[in-house]
Amino acid sequence: MGGNSFGTLFTITTFGESHGPGCGVLVDGCPAGVSLKTEDIARELRRRRPGGGPQGLGAASGRAEADEPEILSGVFEGKTLGTPIAILVRNKDHRSGDYDELKDLYRPGHADWPWEAKYGIRDHRGGGRSSGRETVGRVAAGAAAKAFLAEEGILIRAWTSAAAGIQAPGPGDPGFDYAEAAGNPLGVPHRETAERILEKIENLRNQGDSAGGVITCMVTGLPPGLGDPVFGKLDARIAGAMVSIGAVKGVELGSGFTAAFGRGSDNNDEPAPPRAARSGLPPGVPALDFKTNHAGGVLGGISTGSPLEFRTAFKPVPSISKKQRTLDRQGTVRDLVIRGRHDVCIVPRAIPVVEAMTALVLADLVLLNRSARV
Amino acid sequence: MGGNSFGTLFTITTFGESHGPGCGVLVDGCPAGVSLKTEDIARELRRRRPGGGPQGLGAASGRAEADEPEILSGVFEGKTLGTPIAILVRNKDHRSGDYDELKDLYRPGHADWPWEAKYGIRDHRGGGRSSGRETVGRVAAGAAAKAFLAEEGILIRAWTSAAAGIQAPGPGDPGFDYAEAAGNPLGVPHRETAERILEKIENLRNQGDSAGGVITCMVTGLPPGLGDPVFGKLDARIAGAMVSIGAVKGVELGSGFTAAFGRGSDNNDEPAPPRAARSGLPPGVPALDFKTNHAGGVLGGISTGSPLEFRTAFKPVPSISKKQRTLDRQGTVRDLVIRGRHDVCIVPRAIPVVEAMTALVLADLVLLNRSARV
Amino acid sequence: MGGNSFGTLFTITTFGESHGPGCGVLVDGCPAGVSLKTEDIARELRRRRPGGGPQGLGAASGRAEADEPEILSGVFEGKTLGTPIAILVRNKDHRSGDYDELKDLYRPGHADWPWEAKYGIRDHRGGGRSSGRETVGRVAAGAAAKAFLAEEGILIRAWTSAAAGIQAPGPGDPGFDYAEAAGNPLGVPHRETAERILEKIENLRNQGDSAGGVITCMVTGLPPGLGDPVFGKLDARIAGAMVSIGAVKGVELGSGFTAAFGRGSDNNDEPAPPRAARSGLPPGVPALDFKTNHAGGVLGGISTGSPLEFRTAFKPVPSISKKQRTLDRQGTVRDLVIRGRHDVCIVPRAIPVVEAMTALVLADLVLLNRSARV
Amino acid sequence: MGGNSFGTLFTITTFGESHGPGCGVLVDGCPAGVSLKTEDIARELRRRRPGGGPQGLGAASGRAEADEPEILSGVFEGKTLGTPIAILVRNKDHRSGDYDELKDLYRPGHADWPWEAKYGIRDHRGGGRSSGRETVGRVAAGAAAKAFLAEEGILIRAWTSAAAGIQAPGPGDPGFDYAEAAGNPLGVPHRETAERILEKIENLRNQGDSAGGVITCMVTGLPPGLGDPVFGKLDARIAGAMVSIGAVKGVELGSGFTAAFGRGSDNNDEPAPPRAARSGLPPGVPALDFKTNHAGGVLGGISTGSPLEFRTAFKPVPSISKKQRTLDRQGTVRDLVIRGRHDVCIVPRAIPVVEAMTALVLADLVLLNRSARV
Repeated sequence: MGGNSFGTLFTITTFGESHGPGCGVLVDGCPAGVSLKTEDIARELRRRRPGGGPQGLGAASGRAEADEPEILSGVFEGKTLGTPIAILVRNKDHRSGDYDELKDLYRPGHADWPWEAKYGIRDHRGGGRSSGRETVGRVAAGAAAKAFLAEEGILIRAWTSAAAGIQAPGPGDPGFDYAEAAGNPLGVPHRETAERILEKIENLRNQGDSAGGVITCMVTGLPPGLGDPVFGKLDARIAGAMVSIGAVKGVELGSGFTAAFGRGSDNNDEPAPPRAARSGLPPGVPALDFKTNHAGGVLGGISTGSPLEFRTAFKPVPSISKKQRTLDRQGTVRDLVIRGRHDVCIVPRAIPVVEAMTALVLADLVLLNRSARV
Repeated sequence: MGGNSFGTLFTITTFGESHGPGCGVLVDGCPAGVSLKTEDIARELRRRRPGGGPQGLGAASGRAEADEPEILSGVFEGKTLGTPIAILVRNKDHRSGDYDELKDLYRPGHADWPWEAKYGIRDHRGGGRSSGRETVGRVAAGAAAKAFLAEEGILIRAWTSAAAGIQAPGPGDPGFDYAEAAGNPLGVPHRETAERILEKIENLRNQGDSAGGVITCMVTGLPPGLGDPVFGKLDARIAGAMVSIGAVKGVELGSGFTAAFGRGSDNNDEPAPPRAARSGLPPGVPALDFKTNHAGGVLGGISTGSPLEFRTAFKPVPSISKKQRTLDRQGTVRDLVIRGRHDVCIVPRAIPVVEAMTALVLADLVLLNRSARV
Repeated sequence: MGGNSFGTLFTITTFGESHGPGCGVLVDGCPAGVSLKTEDIARELRRRRPGGGPQGLGAASGRAEADEPEILSGVFEGKTLGTPIAILVRNKDHRSGDYDELKDLYRPGHADWPWEAKYGIRDHRGGGRSSGRETVGRVAAGAAAKAFLAEEGILIRAWTSAAAGIQAPGPGDPGFDYAEAAGNPLGVPHRETAERILEKIENLRNQGDSAGGVITCMVTGLPPGLGDPVFGKLDARIAGAMVSIGAVKGVELGSGFTAAFGRGSDNNDEPAPPRAARSGLPPGVPALDFKTNHAGGVLGGISTGSPLEFRTAFKPVPSISKKQRTLDRQGTVRDLVIRGRHDVCIVPRAIPVVEAMTALVLADLVLLNRSARV
Repeated sequence: MGGNSFGTLFTITTFGESHGPGCGVLVDGCPAGVSLKTEDIARELRRRRPGGGPQGLGAASGRAEADEPEILSGVFEGKTLGTPIAILVRNKDHRSGDYDELKDLYRPGHADWPWEAKYGIRDHRGGGRSSGRETVGRVAAGAAAKAFLAEEGILIRAWTSAAAGIQAPGPGDPGFDYAEAAGNPLGVPHRETAERILEKIENLRNQGDSAGGVITCMVTGLPPGLGDPVFGKLDARIAGAMVSIGAVKGVELGSGFTAAFGRGSDNNDEPAPPRAARSGLPPGVPALDFKTNHAGGVLGGISTGSPLEFRTAFKPVPSISKKQRTLDRQGTVRDLVIRGRHDVCIVPRAIPVVEAMTALVLADLVLLNRSARV
């Protein structure tokens, strides 16, 4: 399976360069009979657009693509056929000229040079395949995965838990409000924090600089038993999926790095009688719940039935308008001032990407689990 | 490909339960002509044994297995044949009786219950397949991968950078000494820190408690160009590989979570003229080096030629001798005191596992890279 | 990897229903730097069109699609980028109304009923995904594979060796002429035989009946050493690839079923000193040729350097205009007379499909072979 | 996935050289809860042993290995755990000395030379990995697959339908008797034919020559809906599986090559009301049967519910004691007289191999089918 494919049963392959004819995805393995409409995909794509939020604040790169998806195959009269679902999004708003001067330069923090070191050839326009635009295919596929998971009662919610150096309250903290995250353009679950982050982002923009951040993702409705030890573990797949997103430099599950500094007696989650009935367990296996969730919903690589929780770290956007130094194709040191439209902080736009990749991991594991027992 | 397999070209499948007849691995895709001896494998296995270090300090669980590997196939007169390499390590030092009372109990922090929720059946003896003993197969396969990588000039070194809540100096910090890490049983690159950690571990043991920690891994000699965007990225594969190791709760590359709180102008690594000649680049692509390495040796999922650097977080050992509460198979709340031999801190024994998984990722990517260009 | 994907390194996933928006393919793993133009793909697609040959004889179904491919990604300035190559062919000449009465009927010899038994849903228009139109994606991908193989000096040629019950001369027989096969619309390597087959096909058409046939494929320029024992053998992959083509009911390599009735002393091909120098062999391995080629160019699943030769059997077209009996969705026995445009004999149009699948197998094995040795 | 692996969910990887320490297989993906005993595996292995039949007639190579399998993992108290099942069969009866003179010779009809052309290295003893002994792993894995399929009511039966140039009666022909095939050492379903074949084999043995043959396989109890278009079709997988067996040169399904010469009106199988109730169909899909079975139980790559039927052609055994000519490692023409124990006709011993590969294909497809629909 090639480097652009993901999944074992619910599989996807994404395609497209930033300034080529289009971007998209081929989903193979979505079960037949899932309700899926073009609008389901369009809605998710709008969330990753520059200025996709209500007021178009902060995160906007200025590039305004309609991003209208076309379903080319695999859906008939609103239902999936069990055949490959090809989804195409045309690239429309090219300003390839902005990139002409970058043709023979290697931008710091970008894949320009490693890409050439690997392939010997590169589509320099807009970053080519290493552009953030590549996530269009992921998000489109994620919409199909979410449609399938919705029928299983599984719900995925991600938000900006830190950006531009400022941390937002988390679940359980005073002021945390997921509805707020869903409503503001920064995806921050706390109004005042969102405003502080926005102010910081504007300052950075004025300085020609950029910021990173952290996205937290929480999944509810997950049955216990998902995940295939020892290499197809739920958490291993989530980690691989997250770090496959451009700009991601780290991921942690449950108590994560904090757990590494604690004690077993504090970190173990105590099993307890179930708070509610649970169906679907094999004969002879009792239902149970855990009193805490330091594990983040996964033990031994298998879902516990507690919410799956993890955090993903994004580095600051490497395209900054401040003057930098780099090398050109002749190996000469050159000054570089990057023009064009660029995000100061990519984190809010990455929320639907995190959710999409999570949905793809889970859809795959739900299907794989159908073969776990006789 | 099943959940117990890893890799695309240099592939492995591990097998074995903790108290079954044996553990091992099947390596398929190791190129023909690699020098590989049983001793190469035995040496790596000794590093993951309880008390594998010089004085048998701290980390020891007491279970003393000889762990003598047998190569069943794929090697002829000291060279790999290009056929599957099967390696078997017999399980010898069973004390399955220690586990009898755990048969109908679900240990906190262990996979006991999720495992049954998934498969409906479980080998309870010694944790079965979810035991740390499963890593025997990984380490054996890693020895083959390392033998291949050695011929490519690639060197992998991991060490304990934090344990029991105590952080050790890192590369560049005063006192950091990799030779020390290779020499002491805790794998800590600083003698005084090792002694403090050991003292802390003994205190925890006396309290019936346990500890976690962090392993840092650094790879040198890596050519630029390794890694297959967009899902087979070098860092995505490393992250998936690390989190597939039992007890791992997080991974970060380069500046990791710290980068998420910084600025682009600080985080970008400046390209600069190469410090030494570099062969193997495609025609027309200049050699270059980076002045810093916040990226941890990877940009856009492709190796940059700088050292690959990442950190992996391990949770505290869940088997503690302190009294805990849990449920039994009838759903009744029960007291639990875990007997038997258990590590207080698994981190030092996980060092060869981290190295093995890293070697497997890299061996696979080196082979995959042979098909990147015409 | 899903059921619509093929290959390990040079991988493809095809998509599209007969009367949906379009058909196509996503190629992932084609090396960077291969020369590929839209016209290379269009040329192959023309060969599989109804009436694609010079006079549009016999095999024509009447459906006349332009089949203009669009390369959506993966090619930049005439060279492959090493990224996924998405190719789309719009479906234009729908006459879906022809299929309305088939919506609730199960056509004999077609996948209609098994398809519903599997998926519970079916796009009945034009056979949906089980239409011969699905091969558009295969042929488009095959054009990319051929472009890569051409750079390796590998040449694939297939022809109609039997059709409508009439056998044509083979290589070595008097009158065999590959140029003739390439020139006539039936792909038959002998003018008089082609005329006899054409006459027979016209008779069958008048009777409302149909015919099958056999395609022979020969590959020259193949280096020895291709094929991965024991399940990825060259011949095993060819067999799987051939039988994946709709209507195929058998495949044989070299002497095939005839060999099963002969003796070892007759069937063994005698090794002999090489007729020409051969490069690329490992050190210490002498060049050799075989005096005969009963093996069809493969021993132990590995290419021998002799031409690869195999034959593929196609059943008669199941869509016949003669009255048939079948069941409808209510389980009632019904008369059926199939209307619309249908081929009497699909074999000539399947020639580029056989070549495409062969090219895909070989491109994959050429890449895989780069990892066979240190 | 490497060349020694097979399957998507029910996956196997075989290992072992003919004269190495042992042969075996690793099964990953067998569902938890299947009843499996060592004796189930041993029984199948006895069927592929030289002289495995009642009187040890004809087919015997003389090498008499006990072939006692050991289950190393994945089974606990007689039930599969859902973890990898490793099965090892030690090689015991080596007479490697018999092969010393073959070390620098390339046997006609064997993989000796292509193997070296590929890998640059070869274990010459007993053919190494390209020996028929490699099928030990396949047969052992097949026993597990059969155990799983038995719980699904699927039954696989193969027999010798032709050997040494003599055809046996088939199902429907007078005298056909499957019980006879199961009872005689040649696996021929007709006593008199078996005796004629045996006589012919003895003649060939006296002449220092060898024979091939054909195995027919029939599967009953198969539900409709198995097989994943377009590349994972049931028949495509069967074809690939069969040709992966050493010495196989062809495969045909249902009417096979005969169909290629017939007419659509004869070849189409007429759907008819079901002879018995059928459960498991999706809502709204009527049960049906087919009046004939030219299709061999598969349409559009999906099982129809009729018996799956196919034939596999085996070439004559290449190891003959007649004098042959070949080349040595120096490229010199040499006379060759093969010593040692060799089968005159491998076909009877290949019956359990054909069944095993069929079981593996079907077990995989049964599992895959669990994800076909919501």
